Amino acid sequence: MASEIGKKMHEVSTPAVVVDLDIVERNLAHMAAYCRAHGLALRPHTKTHKTIEAAQMQLASGAIGLTVAKVGEAEVMAASGAREILVAHPIVGDEKLRRLAVLTSKVRIIIAVDSLRAAEGLSQIALECNTHFDVLVEFDSGSKRCGVVAGEPTAQLGEAVAALKGIRLCGLFTYFGSVWGDEGERVLEMERAREDVAATLAAFRAKGLSTEIVSAGSTPAAEMTHWIDGITEIRPGTYIYNDLNTTYQGLCSLNHCAVRVVTTVISTAVPGQVIVDAGSKTLSSDLCSAGPKSGYGKLMECEATLKKLNEEHGYVTAEDLSAFEVGQVYTVIPNHVCTCINMHDEVLLARHGEIVGTWKVAARGKVC
Amino acid sequence: MASEIGKKMHEVSTPAVVVDLDIVERNLAHMAAYCRAHGLALRPHTKTHKTIEAAQMQLASGAIGLTVAKVGEAEVMAASGAREILVAHPIVGDEKLRRLAVLTSKVRIIIAVDSLRAAEGLSQIALECNTHFDVLVEFDSGSKRCGVVAGEPTAQLGEAVAALKGIRLCGLFTYFGSVWGDEGERVLEMERAREDVAATLAAFRAKGLSTEIVSAGSTPAAEMTHWIDGITEIRPGTYIYNDLNTTYQGLCSLNHCAVRVVTTVISTAVPGQVIVDAGSKTLSSDLCSAGPKSGYGKLMECEATLKKLNEEHGYVTAEDLSAFEVGQVYTVIPNHVCTCINMHDEVLLARHGEIVGTWKVAARGKVC
Repeated sequence: MASEIGKKMHEVSTPAVVVDLDIVERNLAHMAAYCRAHGLALRPHTKTHKTIEAAQMQLASGAIGLTVAKVGEAEVMAASGAREILVAHPIVGDEKLRRLAVLTSKVRIIIAVDSLRAAEGLSQIALECNTHFDVLVEFDSGSKRCGVVAGEPTAQLGEAVAALKGIRLCGLFTYFGSVWGDEGERVLEMERAREDVAATLAAFRAKGLSTEIVSAGSTPAAEMTHWIDGITEIRPGTYIYNDLNTTYQGLCSLNHCAVRVVTTVISTAVPGQVIVDAGSKTLSSDLCSAGPKSGYGKLMECEATLKKLNEEHGYVTAEDLSAFEVGQVYTVIPNHVCTCINMHDEVLLARHGEIVGTWKVAARGKVC
Repeated sequence: MASEIGKKMHEVSTPAVVVDLDIVERNLAHMAAYCRAHGLALRPHTKTHKTIEAAQMQLASGAIGLTVAKVGEAEVMAASGAREILVAHPIVGDEKLRRLAVLTSKVRIIIAVDSLRAAEGLSQIALECNTHFDVLVEFDSGSKRCGVVAGEPTAQLGEAVAALKGIRLCGLFTYFGSVWGDEGERVLEMERAREDVAATLAAFRAKGLSTEIVSAGSTPAAEMTHWIDGITEIRPGTYIYNDLNTTYQGLCSLNHCAVRVVTTVISTAVPGQVIVDAGSKTLSSDLCSAGPKSGYGKLMECEATLKKLNEEHGYVTAEDLSAFEVGQVYTVIPNHVCTCINMHDEVLLARHGEIVGTWKVAARGKVC
């Protein structure tokens, strides 16, 4: 796609993902300033961009390290120059743990666990590979996904983990996934989560367990983190690019959405709709979980709805379709930018609407 | 993933996609036999597997050529040895058309259009590149996606297309996407579509336009194609692997589903559910569009529902969760195998439950 450099955004071969670097820089500076103002460390989740160059921009703007979900992502991100990588996902399976052990010679690996079984796996492989893993115990603060019940049960697992060889217990981990919705909803949930954090910190400290790191996640909760005592760092991901989910929660405006999917009208043959060349293979099938929740992304140049996707087809409807013609180019802000980026091997970079470069999505599709 | 060879399916690093080659061979032989019995040509859609080796198996079992959606897929599939590739998607945009023109020196390129604008683009680039494109005119037989209104309107576009330089009009194209559901629903819709096909063929012939190729698509309609006079070939895609959508429509049994996603239990910490390491980044977010429509795939080793996916997490619920433990391995038949395969750079191959090789998903993510 090097041949796209110098073109205007609306001139590129479609469908394509275009990242506006000015908006990325604004978004990174904004979150870094929040963290500085409140004495929080920033360990951004790279799942959103999956790109070494974007990770390096995050590190350059003050991030202390990176967060990943998978070992394969950690392997890619080790090339970013980060000194610390947090694996925010329970890694179960010897092959993956051996690969993680290899990484410990290059970069500090920190990993979250919520079961003794996962911690024992880490311990066994650390000993086998003559290394150690830094470990956080994950507790559930409301997201109901992973994480031990907050308070005493988390501290009990912490005690058991601390006793394992090859492991250094460094603190606590939680994901504020339930902090979602408009500001009122988020405030209420954050206040509830505060009790889980306080109870867990108290139980951990009562047993003399380390709280060197108390890591909390999610973009929607990020800028409320200073309300909760004891959290040392945040792991927002989406904030670098933003999307309709973050916009409709009031976390940013459409002007802060850095990613546009450029798409061409390819058919107007069936009455009552228009077909564009961005389907689920380009945008992902994820619906919007906030705001009007209608459609598969926001068309920016017209009042219309992207009401349905097949793999290669987007179905556009509007009150008046008479202005649509085959060959016209539109841009779409995706519902969920993380799943959109994961569909693509490469993204185009723009400044002031002109293509200035490309990034390889090097950690794309690293499922293991 | 070469290190996985020789392992049992339940021993591989997870999540992973495993393709059972015995089932693939059975599925290919079954569709090839149907086509032979009814004098239909078979031009399978490669969107399901996106893999050169699978395309070569289709060609070896009697396919006359291949079908793709995108130019990037055609570029990959040109290496399969196919003599003909049908691009079943309107290609609008000069850069993509120039790449398609390059391919015409290696392989017969046939392309479907449903607008004069798209045909004019083909004509212009064919002349610029001193080549020609074989073109089919797409009509709508009920799927309401692309395609000119059946009958006279399609013939009018055919006449206009035939008059363009650099283009050879070779016939008609339709997609039986509305033939979906249980057998009764599919029979009714196929009978309705028959009228659209007949009207369009009559109008095309009345103008003396070529009907050398009359190409019809979709796996659910495939084995009803002989009911409709005048169709010369079919383009099924999903039949090579099958999935819950084809199973629940009665097109095959679970034993004919060639793809299993292997996944590990990674958390049982939150009461009332179990988390596995296959989320939407592994299975895709596509819901099932047939049958019970519950969940994001069928867990084969237990009675449980994969009720929700995040990118890296699958949420499993069951009446009795007491048997689930961190570290256990399960296999999942996906809802929609095409979108699942598109998430992966590589698949593992199995015979009798043992890993015997890998395929690169070489046409994965070719959005342009």
